Amino acid sequence: MAHVIITDPARAPLDDADRLQRFGVATIHEAIGRVGLLDPRLRPIQTGVRVAGTAVTVECWPGDNLMIHAAVEQCRPGDLLVVTTTSESSDGLFGELLATSLQSRGVRGLITTTGVRDTEELRRMSFPVWSAAVSAQGTVKATAGSVNVPIAIGKTLVRPGDVVVADDDGIVLVPRRETAAAIEASTAREAKEEKTRAALAAGELGLDRYNLRQLLADLDVRYVEYTESVDDE
Amino acid sequence: MAHVIITDPARAPLDDADRLQRFGVATIHEAIGRVGLLDPRLRPIQTGVRVAGTAVTVECWPGDNLMIHAAVEQCRPGDLLVVTTTSESSDGLFGELLATSLQSRGVRGLITTTGVRDTEELRRMSFPVWSAAVSAQGTVKATAGSVNVPIAIGKTLVRPGDVVVADDDGIVLVPRRETAAAIEASTAREAKEEKTRAALAAGELGLDRYNLRQLLADLDVRYVEYTESVDDE
Amino acid sequence: MAHVIITDPARAPLDDADRLQRFGVATIHEAIGRVGLLDPRLRPIQTGVRVAGTAVTVECWPGDNLMIHAAVEQCRPGDLLVVTTTSESSDGLFGELLATSLQSRGVRGLITTTGVRDTEELRRMSFPVWSAAVSAQGTVKATAGSVNVPIAIGKTLVRPGDVVVADDDGIVLVPRRETAAAIEASTAREAKEEKTRAALAAGELGLDRYNLRQLLADLDVRYVEYTESVDDE
Amino acid sequence: MAHVIITDPARAPLDDADRLQRFGVATIHEAIGRVGLLDPRLRPIQTGVRVAGTAVTVECWPGDNLMIHAAVEQCRPGDLLVVTTTSESSDGLFGELLATSLQSRGVRGLITTTGVRDTEELRRMSFPVWSAAVSAQGTVKATAGSVNVPIAIGKTLVRPGDVVVADDDGIVLVPRRETAAAIEASTAREAKEEKTRAALAAGELGLDRYNLRQLLADLDVRYVEYTESVDDE
Amino acid sequence: MAHVIITDPARAPLDDADRLQRFGVATIHEAIGRVGLLDPRLRPIQTGVRVAGTAVTVECWPGDNLMIHAAVEQCRPGDLLVVTTTSESSDGLFGELLATSLQSRGVRGLITTTGVRDTEELRRMSFPVWSAAVSAQGTVKATAGSVNVPIAIGKTLVRPGDVVVADDDGIVLVPRRETAAAIEASTAREAKEEKTRAALAAGELGLDRYNLRQLLADLDVRYVEYTESVDDE
Amino acid sequence: MAHVIITDPARAPLDDADRLQRFGVATIHEAIGRVGLLDPRLRPIQTGVRVAGTAVTVECWPGDNLMIHAAVEQCRPGDLLVVTTTSESSDGLFGELLATSLQSRGVRGLITTTGVRDTEELRRMSFPVWSAAVSAQGTVKATAGSVNVPIAIGKTLVRPGDVVVADDDGIVLVPRRETAAAIEASTAREAKEEKTRAALAAGELGLDRYNLRQLLADLDVRYVEYTESVDDE
Repeated sequence: MAHVIITDPARAPLDDADRLQRFGVATIHEAIGRVGLLDPRLRPIQTGVRVAGTAVTVECWPGDNLMIHAAVEQCRPGDLLVVTTTSESSDGLFGELLATSLQSRGVRGLITTTGVRDTEELRRMSFPVWSAAVSAQGTVKATAGSVNVPIAIGKTLVRPGDVVVADDDGIVLVPRRETAAAIEASTAREAKEEKTRAALAAGELGLDRYNLRQLLADLDVRYVEYTESVDDE
Repeated sequence: MAHVIITDPARAPLDDADRLQRFGVATIHEAIGRVGLLDPRLRPIQTGVRVAGTAVTVECWPGDNLMIHAAVEQCRPGDLLVVTTTSESSDGLFGELLATSLQSRGVRGLITTTGVRDTEELRRMSFPVWSAAVSAQGTVKATAGSVNVPIAIGKTLVRPGDVVVADDDGIVLVPRRETAAAIEASTAREAKEEKTRAALAAGELGLDRYNLRQLLADLDVRYVEYTESVDDE
Repeated sequence: MAHVIITDPARAPLDDADRLQRFGVATIHEAIGRVGLLDPRLRPIQTGVRVAGTAVTVECWPGDNLMIHAAVEQCRPGDLLVVTTTSESSDGLFGELLATSLQSRGVRGLITTTGVRDTEELRRMSFPVWSAAVSAQGTVKATAGSVNVPIAIGKTLVRPGDVVVADDDGIVLVPRRETAAAIEASTAREAKEEKTRAALAAGELGLDRYNLRQLLADLDVRYVEYTESVDDE
Repeated sequence: MAHVIITDPARAPLDDADRLQRFGVATIHEAIGRVGLLDPRLRPIQTGVRVAGTAVTVECWPGDNLMIHAAVEQCRPGDLLVVTTTSESSDGLFGELLATSLQSRGVRGLITTTGVRDTEELRRMSFPVWSAAVSAQGTVKATAGSVNVPIAIGKTLVRPGDVVVADDDGIVLVPRRETAAAIEASTAREAKEEKTRAALAAGELGLDRYNLRQLLADLDVRYVEYTESVDDE
Repeated sequence: MAHVIITDPARAPLDDADRLQRFGVATIHEAIGRVGLLDPRLRPIQTGVRVAGTAVTVECWPGDNLMIHAAVEQCRPGDLLVVTTTSESSDGLFGELLATSLQSRGVRGLITTTGVRDTEELRRMSFPVWSAAVSAQGTVKATAGSVNVPIAIGKTLVRPGDVVVADDDGIVLVPRRETAAAIEASTAREAKEEKTRAALAAGELGLDRYNLRQLLADLDVRYVEYTESVDDE
Repeated sequence: MAHVIITDPARAPLDDADRLQRFGVATIHEAIGRVGLLDPRLRPIQTGVRVAGTAVTVECWPGDNLMIHAAVEQCRPGDLLVVTTTSESSDGLFGELLATSLQSRGVRGLITTTGVRDTEELRRMSFPVWSAAVSAQGTVKATAGSVNVPIAIGKTLVRPGDVVVADDDGIVLVPRRETAAAIEASTAREAKEEKTRAALAAGELGLDRYNLRQLLADLDVRYVEYTESVDDE
């Protein structure tokens, strides 16, 4: 594979990213048809933070953060950096200095399949990070990779310019051309969830609200009184 | 296996659950003979919370939360929902809406071998959760399972009506008919620990307090001055 | 292997440990040549705490904390206890009582490849811990091990008397005789990082600051305008 | 928990174990309602061997095989030894010498959640083993456990006297009182599978044989010609 | 996401798949620029088998093999079935009956991120399989998925009609339109490797053949006589 | 850390390696005091092979095999190459070409904490390998490391010139200066095991041979007749 740095990729409208940020990751994921999640092993290093932005993608060699440096220059305000390595690595490819650089360019956060370091400083400077590990292990700058090519994380392909939303529940991707539809669907779902929440809080059962009693019967799930079952143990 | 929903199982007295909640999970585990722990991979999504309740058990198909909906109806105030799947799954089978439903019925928390989602909301509504993962991945309602049958989590069998206590250290089970003995043993252990804590704080060594010096000698553990050993390296 | 308790090993000057504590783990690791990290799977049970001390090492049998009791007696103010087992174990070999004992002797914290328990209490008493797991599982006192022998954790050999520094990013070891050099190198690195941070905050790119543009060219990384690349997908 | 060695537990008829051995693990598992599998992480150290026997259960302390020695005495011809530890351990609790002892008593094999060693010798002496690991790590004989108590492995509870069948696909348990039903159901399933195999080999599709076309339509799965879909990418 | 079954996707020429089958997975991966590997956790259930074919892709719900049945109908001679689930699952979604069906249609093998069962039978019928697990766990047919949509496995996106080559080293993907180039590059690499092999067998060092001595010097790797270094330990 | 290639380290007598090769890994490990095992996750890619040799150690950067090339030159007949990386990597750092080079120098095998590739060819050329993974992922030659420095693998420190013995059970290390003692101890253990084997085969119980009945009683392990225990369930 030729290693390339794609410059100036088309991005989803930043306004759409901002609108999507109002919704939780789980809500968007459900609204767009239960797709788009990145690997659930990527976890936030902070709590209670939600962020949305347009993806700048980076593919590094394990133990090497050269291409992150190359990617910084490609970043614009509203972007989120999304990093992976060609094979699994828990090394701390990213820390406070790169975060300073990104923050000065208006980048909203980092998502990486690797480790990160300087986590206390990153929290202090309010630079949100989702990563597969925390590790102080330093890296070299010696091997080629690519910027703004499509990268697979978990079951999902991330393309540059797609919107990525991340919160305590994980990370969801909305393809660049589908943001308007995702906003609409998420708005509708949120409204529906609000009604459901009120009904459930008032004591209505999901069994009734979702018409599941017939399904249980169709699946031959039997109700058995406790005394009857004890002998089976 | 026929799939069943056992209704109205015998439960340990809720007063006993409340009394057990005063003790830490580690204390109860030691007091009842170093047994009863659930899989240590189940971790709290919050910190500093301890809860105890009577178990309502649920066995779901991976990627499917139908039986949790069926289980809600079986819950009473003071219960704790304990969920597993027939094979491993990190999917977010449980979130804010189900928690709303359970909270409206007086359920005290959730323990699940799967993932959960809406974690920020769950913390905000003070609904405590212990899970193997956090994942926004949504689920379907299509496949049968069971409610209030015995389920194995780690090395421990959880039966409906057993008392489950959970805190930052993990989760311990006290069988339904053994709660009184567990309260007594935990009370005794706590008193003993209090004495030990005072002695250790005052400088007494565990070596002396537990009579371990003779054991070390019997096991042929030798004391060697540092200078002597350096040559061995 | 004969099991031994090495008494009174040479220790790095405690003043040096105190000086090293001013630096983050990642900074020291970089300053001393990108070495010395312990297994990144060892994670703190608290956040925002950094500690440094001289290592007292313990090798236990899995499921057995006898040798930790033997090690307590060997500890002095300023020490950090570093524990491993001969094979992997997630059991809670350590809890509040042992922490009380260590704290009364001036020990600054615990690093263990096993699990720990009483985590809420440990946080409350400000006794910092880095461990591979949290587990309430209790242990026995039945099998021999050693104290103050060299132990391998991850890729790093820990010898008694070495300085260990731990924070949110993990744990780094500075060999006993290399503390002065490590302090000097860390001081220099911190000064350099401060300058770099200011430059990056002002908008300078790592590509320029580290002279990476030529390297990218040498590695045949090509810049490609977005429109050109779209056809390749 | 009091540690006990239960002597002379009721066992399923050995004839039934012999009959069940004719069926593959997957066939029995399906026939009895898709239940009874032990943790799929337990893998055979040999290939192409199937064995069935009545369970003698052992609960050991990690790193300690004392209770296996106690269990040997409880074994009869036709038994299978099923071993677990109170917390996870990969140590080699079992090797050639114990296999020699068991083989002399007519025991048919070993299933263990731990490691084993002497694997080459075990294969040579045709003593089949399913384990979670291979490890040469030796163990001690110092800590109490139990024999012939119920133990949980994965999602399944193993009771002494139950029939255990193991082959290349894993391990399935048939409860002691349900062997006759399991034989009947397995026989029926095998006959049905034979017919299905012939039909599928002749080119019939599962879609038709299992009437899945309507289900796909009900689930809104659409058939789309390739040319139409390409634009969506 | 609408669930779709894409019919009759364009496929790479089968002749090209046959030509690629002559090369090892590692050779092709190197020849095409060190890309295209599927997740190395997918391992063969047999040894010494290499296969190449055109991909038919399947996305299933965890614990559900409905879409594999739908995919069978889409298969042609020379295809390889490539299966994943929307979230991780080790269940045995595939066994002898489906293999019979596929074999009757000329399908060359299976690659799946899940588990498989009937492994002994699959080996006996010479139907090669690469999977993440072996598990007898049965599945249901209840939830929608897709056939012949792009799926990500590890870092690599698999599209229907791409060539997949699998052997003992793992699995490599060659995009549909790049097979000719891959054959040419693999042929060239094999020739070069043959020369290198001969040179190395004759005693030439990689250090000399690849001109690495200067690189070592540039990287400040020093040669040190043993006696000199001993004091450093 | 300065990166170094230590030349011509002292090695254990090759005759001693040859003598140790007669014993199984488990036997040596037990004979020398239950120490010296390398990480049990390192598994052979072949079966039924045992090898012993003097260690040449290599520390590589993840994804980079430059230092293996440097190490080849340092190898002599009778050596075993022992490779690790500064952080975890499953990449295929080693394959047929390097094996050809090593075999031409009389090297007896490879032990690596990484992945390997060309596994079928390695088996065919009878070059034995123990590794943590199999992966076709190729590597670069760009980053410094060291040869013949001590490296930690699992709990064990490997120094150049130590004897390493590997078989189906794993890998054990005998320090360079302790080979004679290890041979003597292994010979004695083998003789003892032979007697034990004969006794156990003749029906003597380990309980009696190792005098464990009293220990069980001391540990309060009670014998309970089955009928008595059934009520407890």
